[in-house]
Parts: sequence; C-alpha cells; structure tokens
Amino acid sequence: MAYQQHKNSSADMKEILQIKNYMAEPVTPISQLEKNPNDMKTQMELLIMRIQAEFCRALEKEEDEEAKFLVDRWTRKEGGGGITCVLQDGRVFEKAGVNISVVSGTLPPAAVQQMKTRGKNFDSQELPFFAAGVSAVIHPRNPMVPTIHFNYRYFEVTDKNGVQWWFGGGTDLTPYYLNEEDATHFHLTLKHACDAHDKTYYGRFKKWCDDYFSIPHRGERRGVGGIFFDDIDSPDQTSAFNFVTSCAEAVIPSYIPIVQKHKDDAYGYHERQWQLLRRGRYVEFNLIYDRGTKFGLFTPEARYESILMSLPLNAKWEYMHTPKPNSAEEKLMKVLKEPRDWLHLEQARQVA
Amino acid sequence: MAYQQHKNSSADMKEILQIKNYMAEPVTPISQLEKNPNDMKTQMELLIMRIQAEFCRALEKEEDEEAKFLVDRWTRKEGGGGITCVLQDGRVFEKAGVNISVVSGTLPPAAVQQMKTRGKNFDSQELPFFAAGVSAVIHPRNPMVPTIHFNYRYFEVTDKNGVQWWFGGGTDLTPYYLNEEDATHFHLTLKHACDAHDKTYYGRFKKWCDDYFSIPHRGERRGVGGIFFDDIDSPDQTSAFNFVTSCAEAVIPSYIPIVQKHKDDAYGYHERQWQLLRRGRYVEFNLIYDRGTKFGLFTPEARYESILMSLPLNAKWEYMHTPKPNSAEEKLMKVLKEPRDWLHLEQARQVA
Repeated sequence: MAYQQHKNSSADMKEILQIKNYMAEPVTPISQLEKNPNDMKTQMELLIMRIQAEFCRALEKEEDEEAKFLVDRWTRKEGGGGITCVLQDGRVFEKAGVNISVVSGTLPPAAVQQMKTRGKNFDSQELPFFAAGVSAVIHPRNPMVPTIHFNYRYFEVTDKNGVQWWFGGGTDLTPYYLNEEDATHFHLTLKHACDAHDKTYYGRFKKWCDDYFSIPHRGERRGVGGIFFDDIDSPDQTSAFNFVTSCAEAVIPSYIPIVQKHKDDAYGYHERQWQLLRRGRYVEFNLIYDRGTKFGLFTPEARYESILMSLPLNAKWEYMHTPKPNSAEEKLMKVLKEPRDWLHLEQARQVA
Repeated sequence: MAYQQHKNSSADMKEILQIKNYMAEPVTPISQLEKNPNDMKTQMELLIMRIQAEFCRALEKEEDEEAKFLVDRWTRKEGGGGITCVLQDGRVFEKAGVNISVVSGTLPPAAVQQMKTRGKNFDSQELPFFAAGVSAVIHPRNPMVPTIHFNYRYFEVTDKNGVQWWFGGGTDLTPYYLNEEDATHFHLTLKHACDAHDKTYYGRFKKWCDDYFSIPHRGERRGVGGIFFDDIDSPDQTSAFNFVTSCAEAVIPSYIPIVQKHKDDAYGYHERQWQLLRRGRYVEFNLIYDRGTKFGLFTPEARYESILMSLPLNAKWEYMHTPKPNSAEEKLMKVLKEPRDWLHLEQARQVA
C-alpha cells in the first residue's frame, strides 16, 4: 500500500496510519501526521516506517519460525526519536539491524556541513533542522550470502532565507564470495529503479558508491557497490521523493532472491574464517571512514546502540592474511581492488 | 645489558650491536649507529630494539614450545623502516604484536601538529623529522589475563630555528575481569619507575592515561589505566631518555607476573563471550579515537599491517548487551565508568 495513492482522503489516511502496518507507533504523534498529510516530513516518516516494516517482514520470512525482530522504540531529549529493530543470532541472519529515526532540534553550522558533501552556505549561528531516515545492515550467517546495507534519508535546515531540503541514500552489497550473476542482478535492479526517474542517475550514483565505500589504507572497496547519493534536491521535492521511494522499494527485490538462492549453500570452517576476516574490514570502514557513523557518535546524547548495530556479531583480524593465488578469495579481492562495470555501460556507450 | 653503561668504548659498542641481542638487524645501518653512539637517535633505536627483544622473549617463555614470534623487517620508501613481531593463535597469547619503527623524512606542519597534544610553532613549510618508537599490544587467550598495551617514542623535528625533540609514551592495562590486587601491582610498578625520576610524574600521567583511553560515546574507559604522556622535553634530553628507559623496563615486571598467575585459570563459554565483547570495545577505541592509529593510517604508504596488529584476533558486537546486576562483569564496568585511585594517592595526600 503506497502512501502517495491514499493520502487524499482522510479515511485513507486513517488506514495508512494503523499501527499494525508498522513495527511500532510512529515517532511523531499520529494527530500531527494526520494534520499535515502533504508535508514532506510526514511523507518521509510514513515511507521509512513502511520500508522498515516491509523489509523486517521479508527477512523474517527467510528465518526459522522463532527468530523475530526485537523492536525498541526510543525518544531523544532534544526532539524526536526512532525505532530500532534487531534480529540477532538467527539461523539465517547472524545480525540484522533495521533502524529508523526522526529527529529535530538545532545544529551549529559546522555540524550541518558534516551532513553533506557539497557545502552550502547557511546564514545563521544555530540552525533548526529535521532529519528522517531508514538505515539497515544485514549480516547473514552463511558466507555465500552477501551483507547488504541501505540508507535513505531526508533533511531540512531552516536559516533566515527559508527552508533548505535534500535527500540522500544508497544501497550496496558486500559479498564474501563473488557470484557474478548475483552482482549483476543486484545492480540491474537498482538501475531499473534509477532509470524510471533519470537515465543518468545509475551511472553517476554507481561511481559515487564505489568512491565512497572505500578503505584507502588497504586500497580496496568494501564490497561490489551499488548506488550512493548524498545530496539530491532536484528537479523538485516530489520528484526527488518519488526517486528515493523507488530506490527504497528496490531493496527487497535486489536482495531477497540472493538470500533465498544461497542461504542453504554448503560451507565449512575455511569459508567462515574468510567471512570473519572480511567482517573485520567492514568494521574498519564503518568506524574509520563512514561519515554517518562518525556524525552519529560525535553527536551528544547519541543512541550509540542504534548506530553501532551495523557492526557484525563477530569479526576477526589476522596479521598479514593473504588469499591463496587463484582461490575464490583472491577472485573477490580483485573486484574489491578494481570495481567492475557490472552492466557493461561503457561497452553500451561505445556501441551507441 | 643496558646500553648506557657500555657505549663508551668501541669494543662495548660492538658487543651491544650484535644481532643475536635483537629480533632482527637494526633499521639504521650498523656502521652509522657505530659512528654516532651519543646521538639520541642512536640511543633510542638501541633502546627500542632491546625492549622489543626482551619483551618478545619474556612472552615466548610463557608460551608452549612451538609458539614463537614471526619477525618481519620492513623498509619504507621515504626513509627508515621497522621490525614487526607477531605471535598469533598461541595457547597463552591469542594475538601478541610488538613493533618498532625508525622513520624519517619530511612532513607538512599540519601532520607534525597531529603528533602531539600541545601545539608548537614550526617555522617552515616542509619539516624534516625523525621518529623512533616501540609499541605493543598483547591479547591473551584466557579471559582472566588482561590485555596490555605500551608505546614509547622519540621525535625530532627540524625547522630554521634548529632541532626540537620530545618523548612520548605510556603503558596501560585492559582486564576482562577485575582483580584489584593485579591492578594495584601494575600501578605500583609504574609508580616506582616514575618516582625514580620525578615524584609528580605518576599522579599526572595516571590521570592523563584515564583521560586519553576513553570511549566517550559509551562513557567508559578502555581499561584500568596506567600512565600516558605525550610530550616530555624536560628537564633535559638525557634525563627524559632515562625516564622513558625506566618506564619501558617496567613493562615486564608490571605484566608478566599477572600472566603467570592467571594463564591457567579456569574459564568457560560465558567468560569467553564477555572477553570478545570487551575486545569489540578495544576495536572501537583504536579505530575511532586513538590518535596514533589514525595518524598512522592516514600517512601515505603506511604499513597498515603493523598499525592494525593492535586489533584482537576475534571481537564481537551484541546489540544492547548489559551485564547482570552484581555480576563480575558489572564490577568491571563500574571501574571503567569511574577510574579508581589504585594507590590511594588522595588519601595519602590528605594524611600528609
């Protein structure tokens, strides 16, 4: 049930706002959401609530009966709060975290600048802001199933010239063993979501993803990429929101078929050890380089448990570990050192 | 065999420079060391070589026969190099890394500022520098044996006003289960090393250690502390070197008795799981907050394997893990949240 199609009548709005559709009660009081159905803040909160619930339910379907998401609804002194859903130590998912947060308050301009790559000039000392986003990291147990991460977010900052708004987000895949068919399926699903809005998006945001999820000290990428964009404020608010909606709706079709295909694959001690070493690299990226993690942890009164739910249940660091020549592990490393053009865009461009 | 007592005759210098005393050949050519026996750069390189060898051998003595340090001697394009010694997957030590590095080259002033807490003004754009240090992190297998870290280092930076030099360093202990007797022994050994040089050192450097090894987002310290100092350039170079020598020589008597006492203690699955969770906190501190790690990783052509040998072999992150009330785990957390005055200095001060 997409929110956009229903918001016009207040009866539909009541149906949309039924708690059974979501993992918990919205962060913003329901009466306030009902009063402002066309406000982008309302639209975004309802989108991330829906995406969270749909994704959690899709993951639970792949799990054993008894493995369910734990739901923590939390509030923040300065304003807003969030809903953190974690499934830990399941048979299929070793650790799965799906978090939404809807927060507001005031920020110093330096902190606002941290929120985006492209600098903008803000004309005040203390800036009222609003931020709403959904963010998830899924670490499966079977080393043949990749880790997925996605995050979609909306910001508003008010200075004396008015409200500035923008969207950011992305979805990326981190396999432990390379399966080219899976990587192609994943990228193709994201490309379809992008193409419906702007034919230039996938190519640009695929490159941005490869550049962002990089571990410079090792000269490698975190995974096989996906899409990433930090600062979308065009062509208009509704179009940008529709684009983000398409991306967020593409998560399940991009990932769940890969889980289904590999969750019962055979593996042994060797593959588990390699998975744990690669999870160590995931920790390195998240704690040293990820701007979102650092912005979160450096914010006073941060709910660090929700920020650090992205870390794997288990990780390993071995001194000077090197994959054997021509091994499956080395095959993955080659792709991490040199990102691939999964959909042969370059070739298509040259033919055209 | 202390270097200071022998350096006066060239025959003694030859004896000191015998490779059998160390883990590998010095980074600086032997002929150059022989020519400059009184240069602090020579004295420091020989000190860290000796400390590395003595500590590695003391650890090997606690291990099974077949567990030995792997020795990697490496060089750096721009100048200098290091010797990295790692013992991994032993019965007593899960991962033990003892590294020395002796490097030189030029640095931009911003990078030099990163090397110390207290800003100094340097009067050039590109600064020739020299840095020599020893650094070790020992992660034992038995959760009843604490992790130890120490680092002692010497810097020289040359600008148009001449050479500025300083020492830094510290030793600190990270237990998984609190043993008050061990913590007191550890702090007392460090205090004796400090007191021989300056009666004010232990109190100041104990506090500095508590302040530095802190994980602000969790409101806890990494461990039960020790000493830490970042910037010693008084009363004179020889006295400062002698102080650093005493601290480095105190590592073995502060730690090895604790290893011997607990390496065969009984433990089970529960204690191992808690140790792994605490190792996750160690990773958080090292990757998010430790200035040395970040300075290292952000330096181009850094030997990241030597920097990241400080990370444990295994670590774990559980969402919302909380120790049971009145458990041994909660007892540790209380000390991590509120550092203790192990040697009752405050009490002694009030009585005096």
